[in-house]
This record gives sequence, structure tokens and C-alpha cells, in this order.
Amino acid sequence: MSEWQKVEGHLGSPLGFRGAAAAAGIKKAAETLDLGLLFSDAEETSAAGVFTTNRAAAAPVVYSRSELRAARGHARAVVVNSGNANAATGRAGLGVAAATARAAAKILDVPRNHVLVCSTGVIGVPLPLERILDNLPALAKHLSPSNAASLARAILTTDTFPKSAVLASERRGRRVHVAGIAKGAGMIHPRMATMLAFITTDAAVAPPLLQKLLAASVNASFNRISVDGDTSTNDTVLLFASGLSGVRVTAGAAERWFGEGLTELCQSLAKMIVRDGEGAHKLVTIEVTGAADAADADRVARAVANSPLVKTAIAGSDPNWGRIICAAGYSGARFDAAKMDIRVNELFLCRRGLDAGFDDAAARAELDRKELTLRLDLHQGKASTVFWTCDFTHDYIDINASYRT
Amino acid sequence: MSEWQKVEGHLGSPLGFRGAAAAAGIKKAAETLDLGLLFSDAEETSAAGVFTTNRAAAAPVVYSRSELRAARGHARAVVVNSGNANAATGRAGLGVAAATARAAAKILDVPRNHVLVCSTGVIGVPLPLERILDNLPALAKHLSPSNAASLARAILTTDTFPKSAVLASERRGRRVHVAGIAKGAGMIHPRMATMLAFITTDAAVAPPLLQKLLAASVNASFNRISVDGDTSTNDTVLLFASGLSGVRVTAGAAERWFGEGLTELCQSLAKMIVRDGEGAHKLVTIEVTGAADAADADRVARAVANSPLVKTAIAGSDPNWGRIICAAGYSGARFDAAKMDIRVNELFLCRRGLDAGFDDAAARAELDRKELTLRLDLHQGKASTVFWTCDFTHDYIDINASYRT
Repeated sequence: MSEWQKVEGHLGSPLGFRGAAAAAGIKKAAETLDLGLLFSDAEETSAAGVFTTNRAAAAPVVYSRSELRAARGHARAVVVNSGNANAATGRAGLGVAAATARAAAKILDVPRNHVLVCSTGVIGVPLPLERILDNLPALAKHLSPSNAASLARAILTTDTFPKSAVLASERRGRRVHVAGIAKGAGMIHPRMATMLAFITTDAAVAPPLLQKLLAASVNASFNRISVDGDTSTNDTVLLFASGLSGVRVTAGAAERWFGEGLTELCQSLAKMIVRDGEGAHKLVTIEVTGAADAADADRVARAVANSPLVKTAIAGSDPNWGRIICAAGYSGARFDAAKMDIRVNELFLCRRGLDAGFDDAAARAELDRKELTLRLDLHQGKASTVFWTCDFTHDYIDINASYRT
Repeated sequence: MSEWQKVEGHLGSPLGFRGAAAAAGIKKAAETLDLGLLFSDAEETSAAGVFTTNRAAAAPVVYSRSELRAARGHARAVVVNSGNANAATGRAGLGVAAATARAAAKILDVPRNHVLVCSTGVIGVPLPLERILDNLPALAKHLSPSNAASLARAILTTDTFPKSAVLASERRGRRVHVAGIAKGAGMIHPRMATMLAFITTDAAVAPPLLQKLLAASVNASFNRISVDGDTSTNDTVLLFASGLSGVRVTAGAAERWFGEGLTELCQSLAKMIVRDGEGAHKLVTIEVTGAADAADADRVARAVANSPLVKTAIAGSDPNWGRIICAAGYSGARFDAAKMDIRVNELFLCRRGLDAGFDDAAARAELDRKELTLRLDLHQGKASTVFWTCDFTHDYIDINASYRT
């Protein structure tokens, strides 16, 4: 059993964090929140970040990655906008990112490299700096713990609902919170940093340990989800630790305890992203067991999670397990197809590589569920893994055939 | 200029080849051709094959790959069925493949390992051997050069049109033919052997050279197309050379001449497959130039060709070049996004990593074409490549959400 419980709250629930959001006119629809500011009152706030591995990384990624490194894992604020990715915007785009951070640092009275920036939205269009600068003073003025709740909406693009979760746990009589928000509905793919997520905690964690714990949690959550196989230019996970709970996390038991909560939080947000995948109607968990090693388990899970043929079969509740065995077959993993078992939930579709003689209507009923699990047992060894994906529907095409315009 | 011309004809046009097809009841729809036989009259027929790399390779792949090797590149016939892939059918499936070959060899009076077998269709359902055996005698009886034309229809599954091409060339006063047919509309992905294709020629080519030339041609054609990123369990390209034209192909100029024709034929068939991609409305050529090396050129082209976001943007004629730069970015290739140019046909969308300031209506008009080219210049080096892909539409979902049932 986990020592962490889900609780009501928002990004401002951990002690020390305030936030605010505004409609700055970056998105076409006026009145839509598209600019947010998150700030930590604690001078000694630690920060960790995991960034996209995309070689065409956007200006805010290039900027924040470099500043966070220069500040040795200390940062107190992030300015985030939606509606424009500030990607493929060249030297001018980097200038906009830096000017945004500089302006926010001045207003917040912190060193410039303690302000990070994130952007999400359309690629290749200049980000209008003046709309950000015009709105920063009001944002700073409205900073409050409860206003931080609105950040979950300010970062959305094609998402259909805001994604937020808060966990709490007691440690030596003191209460510690971990809170997070995320966005991302397309361009989701299980490689390093697949969307935007912001996490706050009032635990005290030194920067190197914070970075290590974040990397591990991201690997067990955001790097195990797939909507469409595209890895974005912008995606970033940032974690800020104010330390104001008075609970210090160091190597050993405390590290395991905090890491568990952080991973649970990240998995919870990751599953919300998949559930909100562009056009998705179903949340599909892919469990692979019996793999020869962890890398092979991942290869199989990833291939099945990304296969358009598997994802369309799930959309149609078609128990076409041949497509699953086929995807495993081209994954690059070592296994013997004649040993593989495949179940949807508890129902066997394939046993030892052959049709399990299942009842078609019963299989369809399992696949009709809004949340379902595909279980693949390779019977090769003892390694296992879990991935999350969604079905592939008409709505994905509708959303993406005309996103830009 | 190529020395090869497209001519009217079919798989039976090269001297020595006869074929026939029948409706054997393997497909649900009666009267639909689903069984075919191709036979070479020449005892010294050479044969070459390229097979799927999928680890869950189907019984006919396992069988034919092994027999072709055992016979050191000699084979005279292939039995092919559609409607059932004989994949994930275990030991029984291998028995069906072997029994099919044995029965055909007896009727045709050739050694058993001179008969290959291929299957395509649904995975995981036993292939009814008796329907094949019942129809083989009549098939053998109806073998003729002109009846070979019907094989192009007998191998189809979700394809909407038969794919066939014939090239001819003169060599020292003698006329040589290369003819081919192909099928494949889903599970198409640029890795070794991505569909079914059968090629006949009346050139005389020794087995080792024939295999080398086929591998090179497949690599420049069928391995450079993408419909949905899935690599099938069954896919196979077989090439038979009867030698009856009297023109012998050996290393040097003749090899280059014949290889050129073979590659042109394979590219022609590969493009037909993409044009008939499940739900596809457009044939998209991806040209990558200026890559640091050939592997990087391929990485970029493959990532762009497979990106669901790029493919849906093309479906919607949306000049969203940011998705192209993004796909290149996660391809693993080394390049500097700030140097990249992107054109649709001749129109610049992105110049040196930035928006080229194009006219939106003009860009949409270019993207509205049924055949269009995306040109990416990385400005990193001198390597280049070409891939072919299609757009990603509603119809792909419709076809695949209910293929099995």
C-alpha cells in the first residue's frame, strides 16, 4: 500500500506556491486563458527539469534547459503560454524566451536565471512578446495559492479537460504535498518528456536528488504513454520543491517514500493525458510480462502501444489479436510467437500463439469498456513493464487535419 | 534515360510463365478470387525471395524461406492465397503450407522444394487446406500465360485495385521482359519485404546474382514506402527468372541494365501500393537532400513518412510545416533545424528553419494535388533519399476498425 493519498487541491496546495493565469490574446479565441505564472515564495527552492529529446527543440526548451543548468538546479518561477510553441522561430524566438524571463524576474525580484519559460501550441509562428510583457504585471499582482488552480486550464491546447492531481502523506508528524498539472493530447510518445507538466512540492530536496527522482518518475510515467507516436519539440516536465513543509528528503527511506509519491502523481497525470488523447475514447493499459529482459518488455509494449492497426481495432472493439502478435513481432524483442499468451482484461484471446477459442461477443464486451488492459505474457523470462495508450478514432483525424488553421 | 519501357502485359508476358486463379471459398465472399498458381515452364528457373523481418513470421514465410534456401535459389511455382494469412497458426499452419506445396508439386511434376507458398489475410485463423487441395487440379489445368493476368486480383485483401506493371527492353537484338504484381494496403512499412509481390522475367540470371539484384531493388522501392508503420507477418517478394529470352545477365553492364529495370518495376509497384494505402487519397513523395550521410537521410524521410501528424495535415491540405520539422527532429538524424528548407512541390514553406512567408491559399492548392512532393533540404551534407507515403484519413479508421469481422 502506498503511503500517499489523493487529496483535493491544486498546484498551490504545497506550501510556498502561488500562481495566476490570464487571457493574453496569444490564442485566437479571446477570453481563453493562454498565459500563466507559477512562483515559489521560498528563496531556497530546488528545481528539476526533463526536456524533449527532439533535435528541433523549441526556444523555451533551449533557454530553460540552459538556465536551469547554469543555476545548478535552483529556480523559483515559470512563465508558460499556450497557443504558440515558439518553435522553429530561430534566433528571434530565443530572444522572446529570454526577454520573457528577464521581464518576469524583474517584476518578481529574483535572479533572471531563476525564471524558466515554457510554450506549447502551433510551430513556426513568431510568439508575440508584447502580449506577454503587457500581461506579466497583472499576473504577478494576482499571484495566490488558489489562483494557481487556473494554470491547469491556461496550458491546454487540443486537450478537452484540465489535468491536475494532488497527493499528500504524513512524515514524522508533518504533512507533505506533491501537486501537478499537465497538458498534452497529440504529439505524445514515450520518449523523454512528452508534454508539459508542472509539479510542486513542499518537501525539501536538494537539486541533484530532485533531478534524479524526477528523471526516474518521468521514465515510469510520461515516457510510457503513447497517443500518436510523435515526440514534440517543446515538451517539458518541471518540478519545484519549496521545502516549506519542513520535511527533508535525503537518500534512503525518505527518498523511496518521496519517489513513490512523485511517481504515483506522474502516472496519474500521464493516464489523464492518454484518456484525453486526441480523439481517444478508451484508456488502454498494455501489460507485458515474461520478457527476457526489461528492454525487450519495453520494446513489445511500445510497439503494441504505437501500432495504428492495434489502436484502430480497439476503437472498433475488434478482438483482432493477430495485430498484437504482429506488432510484437516487429518490435525487435526476442521471443517465440508460439509461446505468447494474450488476454484482454482476464479473457484469453491467444494461448501459446494460437487462437484461444474465445467467444466473440464476450471479447467485444471486454473491448467495449472505457478502460481496458491488454496482457501479453511472452513466457521467455521474468521481466515486465506497463504502458498506456488509447484507441485511434475518426476524431483524431478531424482534430489534426485542421489544427493549424 | 532508362533503357526500359512500360508496355502492356501481365505476369505471363515474360516467356515461360503461366498462371491461373480461382475462387476457392477462403474469402467469405463467394466468387471472389482468392487462390492463385504461378508456374514457370523452364526447368532451370532461378528464384529469389525477400521476406518479412517480423519475428512472428507466418507459416508460409517460414516454409518458403527455408525451401528456397534448400533448393539453392531454384523454384518453379508459387501457390498464393488471400483471405487468410496462415499466421499465428502454429505447427498445424506449417503443415498446411507444406501439404499445399507437396500437392502442387505432384500435380506440376516438379520437386517439392521447387514450389513456394504465400498467404495474406486475417491472422490467427486456421487456413482450410481442403479448399486449396480441392482447387489445385483445376488451377493447374487452366494454367496459361494470359490467365496469369488474373493473379493480380487473386492476391488482393483490402486493396481497391489490382497492381501490375510490365517493362521491356532490347538487349543485343533480343527482347527481355520484367513483369510484376503486388498487393498490400495496410501493414505497410519500410522494412524488409512489406507486402506480397511476384515478379517474373525471361532474362537468364544465376540465383546468387538474382538474389543480390532483388534485395537491392526491394531496398530502393518496397522498403521506402509507408502506409501505417506496421510491418506484416507475411510479406514476401518473389522473383522468378525463366531465362527463355536467351539474354544472360552477368556482372557488369548487363547487371546494371537489368537491375535498373527491376528497380523501376519495383518502384512502380511500390507507388501503386501507397496510392492504394488504406483510406489514402494522395500519393506523397518525400525527398530528403543535404543530409550528412545516407543513414541520416533515411531517418528523416522515414520519420516524416510515418508521422500521423504530418499525414493528417496532408489529408487536410494544411501547410503545417512545423510538424515536418518536428518529425525530423525526433528521427535521430543529426541536423541543425535552423538550416532546414522545406518545400511542397516548388513552394517554400520553411527557409533556414523559419516560416518562408508563403501564401496560405497557394500552399493549400499545392497540398490539394493527388500527387505531391515534400522536399526537405537539411544543408548538412550531400546525401539524399526518396520515400513514398500517403495521407491519413477517416477511411483508414473505417477500414481497420472492423477488418476482422
